[in-house]
Amino acid sequence: MNKLRLLTPGPTSVPAEALLEMARPVEHHRTPEFRAMFKQVTEDLQYVFQTANTVLTVTGSGTSAMESAIVGTCPPGSKALVVRGGKFGERWAEICAAFDIDHVACDVEWGHGAKPEMIEDCLSKDPSITTVIVTHSETSTAAVSDLEGIARVVRQRGDDILLIVDGITSVGAIPVRTDQWGVDVVVTGSQKALMLPPGLACLAVGDRAWKRVDSFSSRSFYLCPKAYRKSMADFDTPYTPNNVMIRGLAVTLKMIRDEGIENVWARTALLARATRAAAEAIGIKVYAADPSDSVSALCMPEGIDESKLRKTVRQRYGVHLAGGQGKLKGNVIRISHMGYVDALDTIGAISAIEMVLSEMGHDLKLGSGAAAAMTVIARRS
Amino acid sequence: MNKLRLLTPGPTSVPAEALLEMARPVEHHRTPEFRAMFKQVTEDLQYVFQTANTVLTVTGSGTSAMESAIVGTCPPGSKALVVRGGKFGERWAEICAAFDIDHVACDVEWGHGAKPEMIEDCLSKDPSITTVIVTHSETSTAAVSDLEGIARVVRQRGDDILLIVDGITSVGAIPVRTDQWGVDVVVTGSQKALMLPPGLACLAVGDRAWKRVDSFSSRSFYLCPKAYRKSMADFDTPYTPNNVMIRGLAVTLKMIRDEGIENVWARTALLARATRAAAEAIGIKVYAADPSDSVSALCMPEGIDESKLRKTVRQRYGVHLAGGQGKLKGNVIRISHMGYVDALDTIGAISAIEMVLSEMGHDLKLGSGAAAAMTVIARRS
Repeated sequence: MNKLRLLTPGPTSVPAEALLEMARPVEHHRTPEFRAMFKQVTEDLQYVFQTANTVLTVTGSGTSAMESAIVGTCPPGSKALVVRGGKFGERWAEICAAFDIDHVACDVEWGHGAKPEMIEDCLSKDPSITTVIVTHSETSTAAVSDLEGIARVVRQRGDDILLIVDGITSVGAIPVRTDQWGVDVVVTGSQKALMLPPGLACLAVGDRAWKRVDSFSSRSFYLCPKAYRKSMADFDTPYTPNNVMIRGLAVTLKMIRDEGIENVWARTALLARATRAAAEAIGIKVYAADPSDSVSALCMPEGIDESKLRKTVRQRYGVHLAGGQGKLKGNVIRISHMGYVDALDTIGAISAIEMVLSEMGHDLKLGSGAAAAMTVIARRS
Repeated sequence: MNKLRLLTPGPTSVPAEALLEMARPVEHHRTPEFRAMFKQVTEDLQYVFQTANTVLTVTGSGTSAMESAIVGTCPPGSKALVVRGGKFGERWAEICAAFDIDHVACDVEWGHGAKPEMIEDCLSKDPSITTVIVTHSETSTAAVSDLEGIARVVRQRGDDILLIVDGITSVGAIPVRTDQWGVDVVVTGSQKALMLPPGLACLAVGDRAWKRVDSFSSRSFYLCPKAYRKSMADFDTPYTPNNVMIRGLAVTLKMIRDEGIENVWARTALLARATRAAAEAIGIKVYAADPSDSVSALCMPEGIDESKLRKTVRQRYGVHLAGGQGKLKGNVIRISHMGYVDALDTIGAISAIEMVLSEMGHDLKLGSGAAAAMTVIARRS
């Protein structure tokens, strides 16, 4: 028997309740029933994004929402500051390049988060920057940026600078207070903390951002935010949506509402702390200097083959972990704390890692990692 | 009891086998198992598109593949001929406009298909046209264009003119012989003859089209065909795909393979002929002068409220039909013959329409429509 525990930082595990809802016969999306459901989904998304503003739902990968944010709000020739501290920061820069948006990189050492003072410094040096793009939780390095602080320095410069945030592994996992902090655009994907398969992307767009969207004619069609806003007035979409996944989203968002977003954040953070404590106990380093609570990247001890570790953990115990991306390939394993994951999933994954590491010759006291995790979880500390 | 029969021309009914496959626990997509499945899916798509060339799979609505075709193959400032004979032809023109592609409309009367001589005429008049865009089966009017003939006149003009085809309600429903006819790009969506929910779009791209794609730097990112081709070499996708739907696609494509594409086309055509015979028998007109076999649009008799008819048919008999779009709103009902629909589904829908029409005061002999359909189906004529 090989019971699967999908603990990669996306796709993440999907609750059976949502899978079964999506397995019900397919209905048409232009019905009063669908509109009522989509209205509820949109309200629940506003709750998860902590915004009273529009949240748009696009049928596509997370990258489609990233592109929508860029093409919708950045006129060609305008200047954007892009924080680059991992693979996803690099993707934002690539999207800017594809659409002739002049972009300045704010390079952050991998494993570190962006700090408000770095952004402040970049904005002071170049007053022609009109958009700041930050990856809140950089999935590739498992590092978190101080979004609240960054939003504060951006907002201090007035309403003409937009702050676009990649919330793909932060929304629904770690605190994101879109309106309170003054963030203009936040994007996320369905296959992370929203507990669904890949296939939907969401985009919260605030008033300052809409003003920008309306100020120019963007060269876009499928991903033009204006079209989605127009349809949204009637709880519809401009193009045939993945209505089956929107039905699944209704189920998972209700689960988040029932648990309470602060409780979801607290659970995610607790599992992250438990994992970091376990890593310390078994003598493996947490990669990030500024670790995110939605995903952890753990460094491989000297002499341990990362790929063999993950393969054995999967074969023997059914736990699917992620490896490193880009220059971290072969150096780290990544484990998700987002979405449909609980204490025993986490303790189980740690146990599996311990057992296999021990067998592979890493010196550890079997059970010490799990014990450290249990201590954190039992004390909720 | 209200047993649903979804007979709208998209979304269409999805077989329980595919729904249940998609309800299995979510796996990661960067695994040897996923790559092997995606390879098989791609080969099966080549069979359905009748091409030996690349078929790309994008996570998005059908419109995303339309945009990918345009941004990938039409440099800004180049000139395209767009056949407009319904809502979807208009959408192609809108996409061209969004990307600064100079487009000439070939306006076709609604309900009529484009004829080869019209295209020949337009190309003769304007030799600067380098792309021809045709909606094979125009879903909004249920009219079909003579694609084979159109491809012939385009090909006669050499390899520098591309033929892009909207096969959204034709691929897998009516004969499309991409390579044999010399079509360069064909797009479709998952929620039509591919028997899945909305959420995936596919794009067959031939050699002449790739040459064009490689000849300029397109201003696109998420929908850039180059990125998909690059990943496809390794049976991967550039951005996290809706891997659950690709799993469903493996199931429905196997069903098409097992039935045989020619048999699928024959079944679809038979159901369309049966529906048209039924319409004639009960005294209602088929809207299209050149009717498509994938969907039928039936004109409402004088005094019959189209919306009330569809609502009653749905409430009383569980049959979900579509109404008209654009200027056909209120004037026609549309019934799909694509995908997971068989003889008794079709006879059932006709029976429901007959019963409700009779009750609403339309003069007909109850059962005459069903009898006419049965005659066509029983004789396979």
